Amino acid sequence: MTATEDFATMSARELRPVLEELYAEYVACLDEDRLEEWPEFFTDDAVYRIVPRENFERGLPIATLHCENKGYLHDRVVAIRQTAVYAPRYIRRLVSNIRVLGWAHGALAVRANYAAFETLHAELTRVFSVGRYHDTLVVTEGRLKFKEKLVIFDSELIPNSLIYPL
Amino acid sequence: MTATEDFATMSARELRPVLEELYAEYVACLDEDRLEEWPEFFTDDAVYRIVPRENFERGLPIATLHCENKGYLHDRVVAIRQTAVYAPRYIRRLVSNIRVLGWAHGALAVRANYAAFETLHAELTRVFSVGRYHDTLVVTEGRLKFKEKLVIFDSELIPNSLIYPL
Amino acid sequence: MTATEDFATMSARELRPVLEELYAEYVACLDEDRLEEWPEFFTDDAVYRIVPRENFERGLPIATLHCENKGYLHDRVVAIRQTAVYAPRYIRRLVSNIRVLGWAHGALAVRANYAAFETLHAELTRVFSVGRYHDTLVVTEGRLKFKEKLVIFDSELIPNSLIYPL
Repeated sequence: MTATEDFATMSARELRPVLEELYAEYVACLDEDRLEEWPEFFTDDAVYRIVPRENFERGLPIATLHCENKGYLHDRVVAIRQTAVYAPRYIRRLVSNIRVLGWAHGALAVRANYAAFETLHAELTRVFSVGRYHDTLVVTEGRLKFKEKLVIFDSELIPNSLIYPL
Repeated sequence: MTATEDFATMSARELRPVLEELYAEYVACLDEDRLEEWPEFFTDDAVYRIVPRENFERGLPIATLHCENKGYLHDRVVAIRQTAVYAPRYIRRLVSNIRVLGWAHGALAVRANYAAFETLHAELTRVFSVGRYHDTLVVTEGRLKFKEKLVIFDSELIPNSLIYPL
Repeated sequence: MTATEDFATMSARELRPVLEELYAEYVACLDEDRLEEWPEFFTDDAVYRIVPRENFERGLPIATLHCENKGYLHDRVVAIRQTAVYAPRYIRRLVSNIRVLGWAHGALAVRANYAAFETLHAELTRVFSVGRYHDTLVVTEGRLKFKEKLVIFDSELIPNSLIYPL
């Protein structure tokens, strides 16, 4: 992505490869455990929430994780790094079925499905969480960044706790 | 997708983002349980079949589900809505590896892989079904619609019965 | 893909649909068990390696499978075909999150995530292996081919042995 692109004038069709790139970078950052870089995908005032599907569909406000700005995301990363009680594991994420809903009031609405797989040391890989993203992006310093990222996961029950971002 | 596009003159490369969009919409319709909208992805005379891979590869005609036109699809939705014996569950679908095989006699052949995950209430998410689509699309009223959708699933055995469309 | 395309002058954005096509063809070749065609995705001097993530990240050279040129890939296919001790099974692969890192010294660096699912006769489908590709492609006879394909899988433990290519 170059800073000279005018994302705001692009059609949904033209934005598709741009977003495929962005989500692939986002996933690689997390999968490769480069958590310190993760907040840079967000605007300073970004809201990041992880919500069970049932709560989301019933309009219940309770979130599993709620970060109100980029500072919270940094804090989250620090918390993960300082926590030693969890068994080491790999998470692998596949993002698919990206839908570009279009621009409204300077913000771009995007939807996507994800599947995340967890591998603990010397164990078989298993499904960790599946769900969807409800995202809002804006252009900041020539780049598309998440102003809001809502992760809606299908299962209330997930193996161990939800430590790593999705 | 706008009605003014001339899909029939597009190359496989040009059709790729169009089909990525279409399959993402198709999946979202099903994942979000908007089943009443599902038949609109099909032509009036569409054939929709779900077939075990072993039957498909042996040339056996037996299908797990066989719908001969759009009316059957509507009936299927009504049947699902009226059936209360199944435990509520979420299905999440990821469609990937879309292949645009090209136009022949006014019909576009497309292949894709899917993975579907099932989440029952208060249970872990598990793999529900994986397989591939063998699809034929035509242009109807300026839109690409499925004239034939063949869902070939890898496992004869699936958790519970195959209630929801793939 | 036509032989007249000049891949070397294309941007990462332009190469994305080309690579989506190529990986979809690669996966279909394997999923449909057309193993004899599989070596044709590689250059004559291609290196194909399957490596556990832990070894890769520690810089350990030990690979689960190491093929030093196309002849090794052909030998591998012959070995698979002649081996009858394995229970028949289907593998279904989803490749996602393709990242085009760009050209350097005539070679194109590409990354992608994969999830592979295994279905044994009369059994439920299960996660077989997830991981990522670290690939290097070059243009040979007008086509993009793998000069190096490194499959890095997350779990040391995989159901049964790693028989089929990824």
